[in-house]
Amino acid sequence: MKLVRYGQPGKEKPGLIDADGRLRDLSAVVKDITPDLLNDKALAKLAKVKTDKLPLVRGKKRFGTPISSTSKFIAIGLNYADHAAESGMPIPKEPIVFTKAISCIQGADDDVMLPKGSKKSDWEVELGIVIGTRARYVTQKEALNHVAGYCVVNDVSEREYQLELGGSWDKGKGCDTFGPVGPWLVTRDEVPNPQALGMWLDVNGVRYQTGNTKTMIFGVAKLVSYVSQFMTLEPGDIITTGTPPGVGMGVKKDGKPAPVFLKRGDVMRLGIDGLGEQTQKVVAFKA
Amino acid sequence: MKLVRYGQPGKEKPGLIDADGRLRDLSAVVKDITPDLLNDKALAKLAKVKTDKLPLVRGKKRFGTPISSTSKFIAIGLNYADHAAESGMPIPKEPIVFTKAISCIQGADDDVMLPKGSKKSDWEVELGIVIGTRARYVTQKEALNHVAGYCVVNDVSEREYQLELGGSWDKGKGCDTFGPVGPWLVTRDEVPNPQALGMWLDVNGVRYQTGNTKTMIFGVAKLVSYVSQFMTLEPGDIITTGTPPGVGMGVKKDGKPAPVFLKRGDVMRLGIDGLGEQTQKVVAFKA
Repeated sequence: MKLVRYGQPGKEKPGLIDADGRLRDLSAVVKDITPDLLNDKALAKLAKVKTDKLPLVRGKKRFGTPISSTSKFIAIGLNYADHAAESGMPIPKEPIVFTKAISCIQGADDDVMLPKGSKKSDWEVELGIVIGTRARYVTQKEALNHVAGYCVVNDVSEREYQLELGGSWDKGKGCDTFGPVGPWLVTRDEVPNPQALGMWLDVNGVRYQTGNTKTMIFGVAKLVSYVSQFMTLEPGDIITTGTPPGVGMGVKKDGKPAPVFLKRGDVMRLGIDGLGEQTQKVVAFKA
Repeated sequence: MKLVRYGQPGKEKPGLIDADGRLRDLSAVVKDITPDLLNDKALAKLAKVKTDKLPLVRGKKRFGTPISSTSKFIAIGLNYADHAAESGMPIPKEPIVFTKAISCIQGADDDVMLPKGSKKSDWEVELGIVIGTRARYVTQKEALNHVAGYCVVNDVSEREYQLELGGSWDKGKGCDTFGPVGPWLVTRDEVPNPQALGMWLDVNGVRYQTGNTKTMIFGVAKLVSYVSQFMTLEPGDIITTGTPPGVGMGVKKDGKPAPVFLKRGDVMRLGIDGLGEQTQKVVAFKA
């Protein structure tokens, strides 16, 4: 299933995308796409709903984040060998774990605001893992059973805040609007191999990132298992799994660094095979 | 006011501590101590309640975390000059910001579990700031107006996970039970100067930490203002502000490092002037 939440911010309704790519309303079946709906049993029940009986939703709709609430938004750093190289950082021996503030989560196509005075805001297309059932000290073998599904995440990052102010990366990762999630939560039965998904990101129509989850250093099962050794993952929690090469910070010209950062009016478009696409306009900060 | 939530985990009732230190039930006035109760207007209304008319609660009660929900649990590193020195780290030029997983939050006196295989679990008494109203790009001058009050936090830390596994500190800071908060949320009118609070921590009756918030490198107003430049702080969010000297990692004997870490059966007791005390027994991990 491709689960969604559509409508105005704070007033989203549950829906799903049918086999023909059309949006159908799920309000008569569930109130919202809540974390308690993400376990296998609840998802199996939802999968029995006759899709063609659900009301079609016509017209262009905004997609909110596909889960009503997330308690933790965990992120993995430098998880593609080529991206580590372009960032000038060594390949990590263990997954790098940091945190995106959950206040940065927003819908897939909502505007991304540049923080006040930001000069180094950057993009990162990433595979997001959505946790379905509580995971605590799970093995790699068990790990995927705790996954509800997958989504596209743009791990928007302010490089000066992330790398030049000291301390952890968290300062540059959780700015408001820096966490577009969705448009869809694609349940894991539709993603038989999460390590074979093509991904891409364009800015203003220019392709900057091209990658595939097959080149991840630490795969989905490893990451869920690994993070669960340090903290309990709850239903609705998201782990975003790192980005392939092609971020703005790493752009070179004639072999020399020529970083490209986001500016007002830019448009990011990004997607992952089978998980849908996001489009964000970059705007100035507004309260 | 000293606001509390008392009772069994997940079933806490709202209460307050009266002028004589007795627990009074607030259930007839509010359903719970929720983030929307933490703004000045709502707190002023609550302050008008005639305390002596509230039912006394007798017997020993468990205290849960004094706020029903927290969306972000932000922590500041190396914020006391002496603690930075004992950790062998330079005094930071800007606040070090990291994140404790909110799944680690628990009541003030709940058992602290050693993570499986943990050899380097450690203590940190800290002043916790509880946000009362949304704070986004607030100045230092405005910052305290966004604070609902203060509480004791034990920023329990696994030093191997924090420091030896690469990446951010978050791996060693958010393990289950690593975030005792409370027992009370003391509203800011009762803490006229948050930079003059004595604090202490004992393990098994031995005093390890003695400090005072006056030696913070970055004070409360600076921290709220600073963090609000990078992410929006929401009502109920907690910023824990760093620990004074005396953590187990920094213990020396005859001038040489002789670190002391937590083991099963240890008892931590900690407190801050006017904010109450916490007592935690250290136990093995249990599901």
